[in-house]
Parts: sequence; structure tokens; C-alpha cells
Amino acid sequence: MTLNPVRVGICGLGTVGGGTFNVLTRNANDIARRAGRPIVIEQVAYRSPNPECDITGIKTTQDVFELAANPDIDVVVELIGGYDVARELVLTAIENGKHVVTANKALIAVHGNEIFQAAHEKGVIVAFEAAVAGGIPVIKSLREGLGANRIEWLAGIINGTGNYILTHMRDEGRAFEDVLAEAQALGYAESDPTFDVEGIDAAHKLTILASIAYGLPLQFDKAYTEGISRVTAEDVEQADNLGYVIKHLGISKRTETGVELRVHPTLIPKERLLANVHGVKNAIAVMGDAVGPTLYYGPGAGAEPTASAVVADILDVARDISTDHRYRVPYLAFSGIDEVDDQPQIMPMEEIDTAYYLRLLAVDRPGVLARVATILSEEGISIEALIQKEVTDGELVPIILLTHMTREKHMNEAIRRIEAMADIAGSVTRIRVESLDEQE
Amino acid sequence: MTLNPVRVGICGLGTVGGGTFNVLTRNANDIARRAGRPIVIEQVAYRSPNPECDITGIKTTQDVFELAANPDIDVVVELIGGYDVARELVLTAIENGKHVVTANKALIAVHGNEIFQAAHEKGVIVAFEAAVAGGIPVIKSLREGLGANRIEWLAGIINGTGNYILTHMRDEGRAFEDVLAEAQALGYAESDPTFDVEGIDAAHKLTILASIAYGLPLQFDKAYTEGISRVTAEDVEQADNLGYVIKHLGISKRTETGVELRVHPTLIPKERLLANVHGVKNAIAVMGDAVGPTLYYGPGAGAEPTASAVVADILDVARDISTDHRYRVPYLAFSGIDEVDDQPQIMPMEEIDTAYYLRLLAVDRPGVLARVATILSEEGISIEALIQKEVTDGELVPIILLTHMTREKHMNEAIRRIEAMADIAGSVTRIRVESLDEQE
Repeated sequence: MTLNPVRVGICGLGTVGGGTFNVLTRNANDIARRAGRPIVIEQVAYRSPNPECDITGIKTTQDVFELAANPDIDVVVELIGGYDVARELVLTAIENGKHVVTANKALIAVHGNEIFQAAHEKGVIVAFEAAVAGGIPVIKSLREGLGANRIEWLAGIINGTGNYILTHMRDEGRAFEDVLAEAQALGYAESDPTFDVEGIDAAHKLTILASIAYGLPLQFDKAYTEGISRVTAEDVEQADNLGYVIKHLGISKRTETGVELRVHPTLIPKERLLANVHGVKNAIAVMGDAVGPTLYYGPGAGAEPTASAVVADILDVARDISTDHRYRVPYLAFSGIDEVDDQPQIMPMEEIDTAYYLRLLAVDRPGVLARVATILSEEGISIEALIQKEVTDGELVPIILLTHMTREKHMNEAIRRIEAMADIAGSVTRIRVESLDEQE
Repeated sequence: MTLNPVRVGICGLGTVGGGTFNVLTRNANDIARRAGRPIVIEQVAYRSPNPECDITGIKTTQDVFELAANPDIDVVVELIGGYDVARELVLTAIENGKHVVTANKALIAVHGNEIFQAAHEKGVIVAFEAAVAGGIPVIKSLREGLGANRIEWLAGIINGTGNYILTHMRDEGRAFEDVLAEAQALGYAESDPTFDVEGIDAAHKLTILASIAYGLPLQFDKAYTEGISRVTAEDVEQADNLGYVIKHLGISKRTETGVELRVHPTLIPKERLLANVHGVKNAIAVMGDAVGPTLYYGPGAGAEPTASAVVADILDVARDISTDHRYRVPYLAFSGIDEVDDQPQIMPMEEIDTAYYLRLLAVDRPGVLARVATILSEEGISIEALIQKEVTDGELVPIILLTHMTREKHMNEAIRRIEAMADIAGSVTRIRVESLDEQE
């Protein structure tokens, strides 16, 4: 072994920081044989000690900026999370000529364009495999493994908390609030679960995936985001009866008019592999023009699964550290993203095409169903299936509809008109339906 | 774009060669933006023209060795298949200082050690993503994406023909021979299907996967290989009744005594993602010590899926072409494989531990079942489930058994003793059972 060690500074010793420290330490010999050179932890910056980590003999600091200025460090590993300090830390490390590895999806989704621009100017690597889908090497697969392809669409279960809740709602017929409380007690959900259950975390990850799939600047602000907090046990059951499973998906498609970027609950056919991804696991289906359908599955969070991705990035940095920057994989997979004139636009949600599941409550009176069907027809929406349930709730009849593909704005108008009907109680439940055929 | 083009020579213009030509041509602009430099097809060597490819303006030859000597070529892409000429071609290309990309699993599994040694001495890349599981980037995922991990086991559906046959046997209750004939008519199986249905092709791929998972020299001759030609419609049905699906798997596990390397029909629980991989699709489950369970799914064969992997390798070569060889990803993931003293051995099949499904035909007479149970007990094998079916075939009763984990040699002895019983007709059907928990 004739190459010098690569010297790493770890910022943050929480869940992921601790996992990274332990994996680098435990598997040091194998990792050195893979890199062709040792990877050593030069310094760790942390606020509170992690009882899982034995940092005996390791140089430590409380100040991440001291670490980012340490001349003995080649790679700064940002695992402190959040936006502001993390952004300043990463930009400082870049300014100091350090390569950066981060697991921070919010940082990359929101400040990625600025960070990559700064890194490009300094000729340093910013790697972020751990920012999406934990230990699943989906960034590497999209940027390199599928590099031959024009990506057509991708769809993923990219938030473990949401999938845990939907899995238990389905398996046990329970309500959202009930399972959420359990997930919080078990530590699978935060005490403020907004980021996870309202889809913000998934939208961060989807923004990153779409950018590297199509070579677009990061545009988190244009993502459509809808959470799972309004999915009911009844919808889960009705979907099941119709042959579907409800999953919280991040979906991005390339169409003739632009790129779709949307996170929402989605009915998918039971036989899809994505429908069989349970609990806190993640999976991403990717369709390429050459390869066809592919799928990547694994743990989307957790100390060592996320560390697995962080350390893989460190290995990549170790291999590319002496490489001319022009030969490296571009941050967002394609070089010259800013120079493309006819870059496709992110489509407004009103313009996307999809199918729909609708559930409404109608007064049990002749002609109501005909009126609903007429409204849909007038909006150009054709019905694939219609189920009028037995009367269970006084005189209100639940009606379940599946539509063929239509444009979101037409559905918005149809729902507005249906909700205005005197014989319809409350609001119409609308969940989008996608076929996402990965077996084709 | 300031870097020179990378110049590729394609040997073979059959299914994969034609697909590679077309993908490189169709997606040339995107590929150049990914590589940061154009990738141009400098020359194509082929015997018969491929009507799918427009080679107007491309330099051609009938002689692959002329191509391998062409000083204007940086990367020789070997897509002629077979052993002898392919081996000579690849070694010649290496000798001429060319980088090599190949889709040839047989070549790598059988001659890989020699080829990598030669390439190492010349400091050139030999890339082979397309050799395993077609378009699925599983080599990249194992060598790079999971580089932080000590791999514990992997198991895959890595032969599309076999999976096509087993899928249709299960869905339609048909016999092996019947579905095979259909697969041959549809072009999914060769007229001589031995390589596919007897597991040789899968064993080639498994040999490669295991080597890069654990950093072992390629040892195809030590793989245990059992095909699917003796799987009956009845076994498929009985497995289904017990909650299992029969898949033809390549399995490799790292144990305390060595490395398992085995291809055989396997009962796996229905709820596994692997059990839901249908038709000609492939999937590989990989368990790492840090990441936990992961899975990679997609098309295992076909012109453009395989080309997707070939072109991804060409992209990697384009990026690493000027890199010091010591920084490149080692051929079999780890450097210095030959220098390891205590390299684990491939275990003989008799020494592996697994569970079993057994099906036997007994004369319907008191005491037969007790005798079978006694033999199993005497061999230290405990029974998980035992089903004695209704008498259907004269006076012979089918008995179905599931055992707990035991050692193969004990099962061999038990089966020898059971088959020697006067009241047992014919031979005992034995199919191994694996839990392969990817949801853990």
C-alpha cells in the first residue's frame, strides 16, 4: 500500500455521525483494501458524547468550524443536520479546499445549487448519497449505473416513517392518528412529525432524485407536496378491495411539456414490488429508456444504514481525490446544467395527468349518481369503476370511483362542482392512482 | 467541453452489440454531458450485419483482432461471447494497452483471474457490469455503493429463462417441459437450454458476485450447481400450500467455516420481494453488516438492458482513463486479493446448513411415517411440518416434510436411509428452503 491515508473529519456524533464513526472503525481493514489506502478519522466535532462510540485517542473539538479549518483534514463529513449552520459549515469547508460528504437532504434540496457552484469553483467533491433513501445506493445507480439511459420516470417510497404508518394502517385496519402515536412512542416518528407525514422530507429527496435523473437544477420550491395525515382507514380498505395499496410516493416523470415533481398518497396495484415494501424500508423504481424498469430497495434511515452511504461516499472521495475535477461525476449527473437553454420546466400540479380514486358521501336519493357521472363526463373524465356501498351512515351512501387518466385541473373542477351539489355531504376524498409498471 | 473524446471499438454486433451501438448513438449527447467528453464509436467488428443498426459512416472490420490493434481505439468492448476467442481477444486488447468492457459472464467466471492479472500488470481497466444481471447495476452497488460493508450474504434470481419457466409453472400449474417448449418458441430459451435451466449460467454470475462481495479469487469450479429440470408442478403446488414460492437462486453466504457458493431451486416465503420477481426479470438481495438488507431489481437480459450496463462501464472508463491505476476500483472490489493468507475457502456442499422440503411416496401402511421420522431424528434433523396427503395413486401416499436447519451431509444420509426403506417408492424429492429475510 503506497498511497497516503485519506484523513476524515466527522462533524456531528449523533445517530448518523456515531454510525459513521463505528463503521469506519470496525471495517477499517476492509475499507482500506477497497480504497487502496487507509481512511483515518483525523478529528471529530460534537456537542454531546455518543455512548455507542469509543473515541479514545481521537482528536475532538466542540467547534465544527475549527474542524473545517484543520489543515490535516481532507474530507469534511457534515452530519449535524439543519439548514443554516450546516450551509455555513459546508461552504466554509469548500472555501478551505476540503471535499465534503453530507447526509443532509434539506441542505442539498434547498441550498444545493449554491453549494455545487462553490464546490465547482474550488474543484472539490460534494457527495450526498446518504441524503436520499439511507443505505440504498440510488444516487450512485442514477448518476453512474444508469448513465447510459434517458430516465423516463422514477417513483419511490422515500420516507420510512410514512411507510411505517401506512403499513400498519393497512395490516391492522387502524387510524392514522393511532399508528402515528405508536410510531412516536417507538422512536420511528419525531414528536413533531410534520416533516415526515406531510411529505416535506420526501419532497427534499425527490427534488434531489429528479435533478440527477434529468440533469436539472434543484427546484425544491416547485415540488407539489401532500402528506398522508388525511388518509383514512376506510380509504386503505377500499383501495385493498379494488386491488390497490396506498403508498406515500415521490413521483417524477419526464413528459413532453415538462417534468412532474410530486409527493402524495398514491394507489398502486398490489402486485407491484413497491406495494410490497413494508415498514420503515424504502424503495425507488426507476425507468430508463435502455434498461427498462429497475428498482432499488433497502433501509431508508438508521445509524449504520445511513453510515453505509456516508462511508461509500468517503470511499469515492478517496479514489477521486487526486483526479482532475473535469473527470469526476458531475454533482447532478450532467455537466453544464446551467448552460442548457431549453431546460425542461417543473410542471404545475394542475397540468399533470394521472388517474384518481374518489370517495364521496351522497344522500341516498335517485339521480345523485347520475349527476356525479354527468359532471365527470362534462369535464372529460371517464370512469373505470364505480362502487355504491350499502347505506351505513343514516341516509348517506359512500360512493367509490376510479377514473381513467385525466388532467389534474379538470379533476379540480369536477370536484368543485360535485362538492357544490346539495346531495353531497362534506368534501370529496381524492387520491391519485398510478400504474408504475415495473414488471413491463 | 475541453477533454478529448473517448474512442470505443465494439466487437460483435449481435443482440448486445447492436443494443450497445444503438444506445451509444441515440443517447450520445446525454452520455457526453455525463462523461464530460464525447464517447465515439471508432470501429465495429462483426460477422453479419444487424438490421437494427445503422452503421453508415462507421469504420468496420470482420476481424476483432484488427480492432484490438487499432491505435485509434481506447476501449475494446467484447460482445462476441464464448470462451476461447473472447479470452484471446481480451488478453490481446490488454496487451495492446486497451481498456476492456465485456458482458461475458462465462469468460470472467472461468478466466477472470488470469485476465485481471494481465490487466493489472498493464494498468488497464476491465469492466464487466453487464456480465451479471443485465441492466441492474449490481456490480457497481456491491463494489462501490456497499463499500462500507462486510457483506454477509447475497441471493439472487440471476437467470431470466429459469425464472420465466418457474413463474409460468406456478401461475398456470404447468409442467417444466411444457413451459420450456413455450419459452423456446418465444425465444426466451435457447434450443439447447442446458446453460440456463441446469444453472451453469447462474453459477457463472454467482461466482462473480461472491468474489466481489468477499474479495475472493474467482472459483467457478467450486460452485455447487443444480438446475430446475426436476422441479415438478406438484412441488410448485405443495410449496404454494405451505406459503412458499420455488425460485432458482444463486446463494452465497459467509460463514465461520468458509463461503457458501450454490445454485439450486429454493423455497422462499411468499412475502419476500424475491418471491415476487416474475418472468424474465432478475433481482439480487444483498445483506451488509452496516446497511442491512438491500435488493436490486431489473431486466437480466435483452439488447438494450444489457447495453445499459455496457455503456455505464464505458462511462466509468471514460472518467478513469487518465487516473493512476492505484486509485481505481479494484477488479474484484478489494486490492491485494492474492496476498491474503487466511482467505476463506469455498465450502463443499456437504458442509452447508439449510432447511429442506422433502416429498416422498410411501406405501399406505402403519408405521411408515414413524420410521421416516425416526430416521430423521437419528440424523439430528428436526421436522417443522409434516403433511400426509390423501391416497391418490393406488396405495402410495405422498408425504410432504419441512425440516428445520440441518447440515447437508446429514440430510444426504437421511435420504439414503429413507430411500432404502421397502415401503418408500422411488427417490425422495429434496428442495432446499431459505428464509432470506430482506425485511428484517
